Amino acid sequence: MFFKQIVVEGLGCLSYCIGCPRVRKMVVVDPKRDIQDYLDIARDEGMHVTHIFDTHIHADHISGAHELQAATDAPILIHEDAEVGYEHESLRDGQVFTLGTAKIEVLHTPGHTPNGISLLVTDTGRSAEPEMVLTGDLLFVGDIGRPDLAGEDIIEEQARNLYTSLYEKLAGLPDYLEVYPAHGQGSLCGKSLSGKMSSTLGYERRANPMLNFPDFAAFKAEVTKEFPIRPKSFSHIIETNAAGPPLLSACHIDQPLTPDQFEAEMKDGAVVIDTRDAAAFSGAHIPGSINIGFEKQLANWVGMVVVPDADILIVVNTREDYERMTTELHRIGYDRILGYLSGGISAWLMSGRPTERLDQISAHQLDNVLDNGGPIIVDVRTRGEWNAGHIEGAHHIPLQCILDGNCPDVPHDKDIVVYCGSGYRSNIAGSELQRRGYSHVRSLAGGSFAWANAGMGLT
Amino acid sequence: MFFKQIVVEGLGCLSYCIGCPRVRKMVVVDPKRDIQDYLDIARDEGMHVTHIFDTHIHADHISGAHELQAATDAPILIHEDAEVGYEHESLRDGQVFTLGTAKIEVLHTPGHTPNGISLLVTDTGRSAEPEMVLTGDLLFVGDIGRPDLAGEDIIEEQARNLYTSLYEKLAGLPDYLEVYPAHGQGSLCGKSLSGKMSSTLGYERRANPMLNFPDFAAFKAEVTKEFPIRPKSFSHIIETNAAGPPLLSACHIDQPLTPDQFEAEMKDGAVVIDTRDAAAFSGAHIPGSINIGFEKQLANWVGMVVVPDADILIVVNTREDYERMTTELHRIGYDRILGYLSGGISAWLMSGRPTERLDQISAHQLDNVLDNGGPIIVDVRTRGEWNAGHIEGAHHIPLQCILDGNCPDVPHDKDIVVYCGSGYRSNIAGSELQRRGYSHVRSLAGGSFAWANAGMGLT
Amino acid sequence: MFFKQIVVEGLGCLSYCIGCPRVRKMVVVDPKRDIQDYLDIARDEGMHVTHIFDTHIHADHISGAHELQAATDAPILIHEDAEVGYEHESLRDGQVFTLGTAKIEVLHTPGHTPNGISLLVTDTGRSAEPEMVLTGDLLFVGDIGRPDLAGEDIIEEQARNLYTSLYEKLAGLPDYLEVYPAHGQGSLCGKSLSGKMSSTLGYERRANPMLNFPDFAAFKAEVTKEFPIRPKSFSHIIETNAAGPPLLSACHIDQPLTPDQFEAEMKDGAVVIDTRDAAAFSGAHIPGSINIGFEKQLANWVGMVVVPDADILIVVNTREDYERMTTELHRIGYDRILGYLSGGISAWLMSGRPTERLDQISAHQLDNVLDNGGPIIVDVRTRGEWNAGHIEGAHHIPLQCILDGNCPDVPHDKDIVVYCGSGYRSNIAGSELQRRGYSHVRSLAGGSFAWANAGMGLT
Amino acid sequence: MFFKQIVVEGLGCLSYCIGCPRVRKMVVVDPKRDIQDYLDIARDEGMHVTHIFDTHIHADHISGAHELQAATDAPILIHEDAEVGYEHESLRDGQVFTLGTAKIEVLHTPGHTPNGISLLVTDTGRSAEPEMVLTGDLLFVGDIGRPDLAGEDIIEEQARNLYTSLYEKLAGLPDYLEVYPAHGQGSLCGKSLSGKMSSTLGYERRANPMLNFPDFAAFKAEVTKEFPIRPKSFSHIIETNAAGPPLLSACHIDQPLTPDQFEAEMKDGAVVIDTRDAAAFSGAHIPGSINIGFEKQLANWVGMVVVPDADILIVVNTREDYERMTTELHRIGYDRILGYLSGGISAWLMSGRPTERLDQISAHQLDNVLDNGGPIIVDVRTRGEWNAGHIEGAHHIPLQCILDGNCPDVPHDKDIVVYCGSGYRSNIAGSELQRRGYSHVRSLAGGSFAWANAGMGLT
Repeated sequence: MFFKQIVVEGLGCLSYCIGCPRVRKMVVVDPKRDIQDYLDIARDEGMHVTHIFDTHIHADHISGAHELQAATDAPILIHEDAEVGYEHESLRDGQVFTLGTAKIEVLHTPGHTPNGISLLVTDTGRSAEPEMVLTGDLLFVGDIGRPDLAGEDIIEEQARNLYTSLYEKLAGLPDYLEVYPAHGQGSLCGKSLSGKMSSTLGYERRANPMLNFPDFAAFKAEVTKEFPIRPKSFSHIIETNAAGPPLLSACHIDQPLTPDQFEAEMKDGAVVIDTRDAAAFSGAHIPGSINIGFEKQLANWVGMVVVPDADILIVVNTREDYERMTTELHRIGYDRILGYLSGGISAWLMSGRPTERLDQISAHQLDNVLDNGGPIIVDVRTRGEWNAGHIEGAHHIPLQCILDGNCPDVPHDKDIVVYCGSGYRSNIAGSELQRRGYSHVRSLAGGSFAWANAGMGLT
Repeated sequence: MFFKQIVVEGLGCLSYCIGCPRVRKMVVVDPKRDIQDYLDIARDEGMHVTHIFDTHIHADHISGAHELQAATDAPILIHEDAEVGYEHESLRDGQVFTLGTAKIEVLHTPGHTPNGISLLVTDTGRSAEPEMVLTGDLLFVGDIGRPDLAGEDIIEEQARNLYTSLYEKLAGLPDYLEVYPAHGQGSLCGKSLSGKMSSTLGYERRANPMLNFPDFAAFKAEVTKEFPIRPKSFSHIIETNAAGPPLLSACHIDQPLTPDQFEAEMKDGAVVIDTRDAAAFSGAHIPGSINIGFEKQLANWVGMVVVPDADILIVVNTREDYERMTTELHRIGYDRILGYLSGGISAWLMSGRPTERLDQISAHQLDNVLDNGGPIIVDVRTRGEWNAGHIEGAHHIPLQCILDGNCPDVPHDKDIVVYCGSGYRSNIAGSELQRRGYSHVRSLAGGSFAWANAGMGLT
Repeated sequence: MFFKQIVVEGLGCLSYCIGCPRVRKMVVVDPKRDIQDYLDIARDEGMHVTHIFDTHIHADHISGAHELQAATDAPILIHEDAEVGYEHESLRDGQVFTLGTAKIEVLHTPGHTPNGISLLVTDTGRSAEPEMVLTGDLLFVGDIGRPDLAGEDIIEEQARNLYTSLYEKLAGLPDYLEVYPAHGQGSLCGKSLSGKMSSTLGYERRANPMLNFPDFAAFKAEVTKEFPIRPKSFSHIIETNAAGPPLLSACHIDQPLTPDQFEAEMKDGAVVIDTRDAAAFSGAHIPGSINIGFEKQLANWVGMVVVPDADILIVVNTREDYERMTTELHRIGYDRILGYLSGGISAWLMSGRPTERLDQISAHQLDNVLDNGGPIIVDVRTRGEWNAGHIEGAHHIPLQCILDGNCPDVPHDKDIVVYCGSGYRSNIAGSELQRRGYSHVRSLAGGSFAWANAGMGLT
Repeated sequence: MFFKQIVVEGLGCLSYCIGCPRVRKMVVVDPKRDIQDYLDIARDEGMHVTHIFDTHIHADHISGAHELQAATDAPILIHEDAEVGYEHESLRDGQVFTLGTAKIEVLHTPGHTPNGISLLVTDTGRSAEPEMVLTGDLLFVGDIGRPDLAGEDIIEEQARNLYTSLYEKLAGLPDYLEVYPAHGQGSLCGKSLSGKMSSTLGYERRANPMLNFPDFAAFKAEVTKEFPIRPKSFSHIIETNAAGPPLLSACHIDQPLTPDQFEAEMKDGAVVIDTRDAAAFSGAHIPGSINIGFEKQLANWVGMVVVPDADILIVVNTREDYERMTTELHRIGYDRILGYLSGGISAWLMSGRPTERLDQISAHQLDNVLDNGGPIIVDVRTRGEWNAGHIEGAHHIPLQCILDGNCPDVPHDKDIVVYCGSGYRSNIAGSELQRRGYSHVRSLAGGSFAWANAGMGLT
């Protein structure tokens, strides 16, 4: 049996190829939209794709099932409860697929969505016992799927489904079984996913708090207590996946834009994402642009900052960066990409248009001005990070609040220094604050890492 | 706790980064010689390397511990029984290392080598119970380490050690524990490693035949029955690793060679490796050159065909291919790389020097000449592949036998058609046969895959 | 004044940027279809494009004027006699354009086409005297424009125009003037263009035979005596340029094709161009495919082998090669590119489909079989090359004749060895012969270069 | 005859390949140190290098003659008056070399150096008359070679030599002859070289002021009046070229450095060159680093800012940028390159070390603060640029003066805004001023281009 996990780092999306080179057949589970990886694997291993599984209607990324179907003619399989508008084959609990030595059994495991399934996989070439379970968005490493994305009206029902799926359906499976979820760290489909991309049932039963509640009441209390951020993109992604997303070949192609053309699109309402690193953005940027650089979480940040139907303009250093960015955007269905600033930021500068800075302040410089009525310091990290240690006297306003315009205590005209862990998120926050009219914003260079490394304490 | 497995596809070498971003420390286990991956991970995660573990003295690849030490100043740690000629810290059974939430316990698990260790890893941030065991070359997915590489005189002792380590030392560990070995498919440190790069103790206890012998006698009979190929490179690699390999910065740099210079080095005994694909090599190649193209197993094939102290000349399509090839060669300690043919094969052709072909024959063409006293057909695949189905009337001479000059039944002057699965290994075989004076050798284009796809049967 | 010549190596197309950074204006003369070079120059030098000149309606390459207009909004300027179907500004003899220190005067110089112009350029920042003349397709280095492309019915009139333009219009210009033509070596708009891309009027007056006829009668006799090859592409290009070519953004995008899809398109009549080098093509190729590898003249060869409205399939080693090939094809208006064989030739081989070889024979091998009734040797080079030395006993059948199916003396069933200079054109010829049913064709590896370098004589 | 000019954009170095493919021989004139271009041309055209000419001992770039000799075994030829410490063949006036149709005659034309030669080239395949003259550092397009680099004590003698070479030796050559100098724009071997890379004798006689003096006295007055900048690098380059430069294979290889290692080298006196663009450098940089980004003149700026025996550290965005930078540095003999900051500037920031900004001010912002006792504005451009238009009220302090520490009127504690044309040179100036202790320096974003484009006037 052939098995391979494919990781999309930023979004934490995990997809899988399972096949048997002897019979030259392969299935793909939860494919991402840029499907070249699967085609390469199929070709390298001498297999062709015979089935495309989606474990549920995804909320956080555009399904690649349709791209893959267009490239391979394989059918798309999804649980019969999924209400989708495209041609597919319906899956039922207990259904079994056999490809040579690979045996795949469908388990209906609703909870994250009503149509969620898990796949129990046996490598009959090695043993008649199952080897692993693909848990979709039901069970993650260190967490479980959130019950709220499929609709606020069915949260309670979904919480019950989650409990049944986790505590009853999976209960009969052995400890040694490997667990391969549809998401790892980075995903917002759960609260606190681990950076590890797989685990075992036995270990999760010991280490995963969500598998250790005494009864449904306690479980439900926790699981419905507080939900993670729901990015602006999620509703749009769910709708798109249910309808069947457009093929990438129908989307825009690369487009260099002159400063004139770029500015014209800005005036028509397009959003400018500047992908350069924090230092470069700080030095000079287009007023109103948002700094979302290349970092694992990039697509998640875009989903939080930009509305899904926005026209998008991009500032990049190189054409390769533009292509990388468009791949990330297409993954979350942000397909209205107008183009990039030809010649980069220096073309803008030389055109004599207004520019803005987002000054970096170094840890030493900040330390020097702290005592005597210095700037308002804003920590934009998560509660967990804040609790683990922060600069004394700082205000904690998580990035999400800033993006929502929810920072009542910070006057527009005061000196503000934002910081995060490394300087990445503080530049998102800083550029957003500038866009909202805060006129004296700086960003702590290197973030709390730099602060600690410079020998200053965190409390 | 941070955890990441790094895979070297061809050789099947697996290395690991384990760390804790909170305390910003990371260990690397069994690093490969090209260490940029580890430096990148450390930087991306904000950690620095504090310890470098080798689970034993490797036989199949040059340890990257010394490169990594040069780049990070971290100490190299190896079991106290390892007789090595470089500065290191000695490890003892039961020793524990703690880096923030990562807890690593040393288990002395000899068998593959006397100095072999496993590492039991606990993520104290998630649970006090251990999460995984890094088994070095003791336990693989689907196989165990071979006992013969450390010396023929101690095979029996090593077999006993293997049994004790596997059946007693690991016996107390729970089923749910993840197993992360030092090798996956491709490695010649075991007989039949799986393509999967990790497993669980419970699954291996069910599916791995080497964990299911009733007593030591039966185990020993199997484990000493037959050993996999031992490439020409292994003794040299063991010696080099024990002494401490030279740093790559001391090795040769890129060198384009004219046909004149190239030919002069050939006359001085240098070996020519032609990395082009099967079709290109077949069309025209330098007489005496060996066709080892880019494929996962590349480095293993080099290790079987070329002696470790050979001077090596390379034929490539592009300079990038040359750099890729040198990385592969350095991994197995083949550091005497003289350079590549500048201008590629067409420079050689235009220089008017003799050239040779290794004609491809298509499945249809071969089928047409089979009946009436056609060519001798030689299947160079493994016994397992042969047994699973081969062309009727073919002779089975595994590639290794051909490389060893061990093919008594094949006359030098007869028409020969060699085949493998895809046409890759048959070109190695064909070029080796040509080098040994066989004058009428052809290769089946696309191998048994093509044969089967063309609708001809295998028996 | 800013001045830069841009060379398209294969087709020999020369285009020019002339501008004045002080006033930040630049004109482009005879742009190629892939216009990024001009945009880069404009940006790097801080200028914007204000005028786009076409010196005439080109016959050998698609004008980039329309792409450049779409990117810059600059007007397209062409002589008033040009009958074109797109919006433009008409040029008249004597018209002067001034951009800062750059002064450009239009000279109507018909002959190659009725609408041909030259541009006399003065750098007033250096001198009031002119510095250079851009001669379009009137005067080349070592040759002049051919009079036949604009139509067979007006050849005589065009010959007269050529004479007048060269012997009268240019006569008043000084010897020291630099000459920058629209074409250099590689172009088929003349007979024997030099590899040098510029010259001076004085030197051409001394060295160019076409400027040294005693009277019109002698000139006309020579200029209408024999025309160079007229590729299949020219009529289509002329029509397309007159109508205004489509923008590249409207053309097909990249498309990987499986062997199944590829074969289906072949059955629908698509032409297969295999761009791999001679050795690789020789080793194994798709029956019916034509070998046109990456070489300067690539686009010209395509224009001779393939009809302009053909659907085109491409075999490449890498995706980069595919992109390079599509750029070349678009330059000559071959826009119906269906895609490339995903996985390259080895995907085809492994699919078990029929393949063909075009055996390379080395100079030594050919020499050995020459004496005793050996193969028919066919020299496919030009008459000039043939006359400068060829293999004794060879037949001279220029490649163009082979492409036209015009080789009466060569029986289909005899052994044939084709050769050229390096082995490039002989592979075009060999693959064309195979396509036409010649069953025993080989190609001399390294061509006459190899033959001579191997010490065998040419007569 | 084959002829090709190879341009090194930044330094303005021009080298030449002249050969005859028929006899397969090629000479290279004034090769640059990175010789791959010549090897590629030789291979592509089927020629081998038979002679390597240096037209004189170069002062501005390391000769590539020695690299080329090592790769081809061809002899190095230089005029007999050149006192060099390596093996070579001596050239005499009137000596003729013939390679097939290429005829090359040596003209001794001292002036820039006592050992300067020109080469008169005839393409006997086209005409018995000469076609071009390679003028070395005697005659440039728009200028002539400066007489002072070979030594202050012989300036007068060299001025006389220049006059004789230009006004007598070249006088007999015809107007139509093409002129191919050893340098174009960018070179500091003359005062005001044109951006055009070739010309004709006739045009230079009309347009080049240095060819139009009535007598030697007037010529000498002008030619010795004022010399262009002499970068720190020139003496070292002359010595190195006279001795014979080391081969690049003996120079340092790539070296990533951690912030710790980087800082340690800084403390040992190494110079830090930051190659990022102006915006990025402005945002955050290492205190004491100099901003010399990728721009044509890069190597010249390095030669002015950094002493030749300095150890050099580099800050880059990518490894490719590092390789590009090392090529540039090796061209001018700056071989002591220690390595680059691994992880780029963000690794430095996160390490908590001090950082600095060089704030960009936009044209609009500067305009707003001009009236009311605003900053001191410093124009660092050349006199010519200053005269063509500058910001009213600015001080003119050419960049060279700033680099020499020669800016008496600017107090260390005042607000300063530096500007140039585009923002490139002002960042060199700004970083140098910061290094010299000026604490309130800003740079005008986009320079005078931006100022003018923003609608503000220049006077």
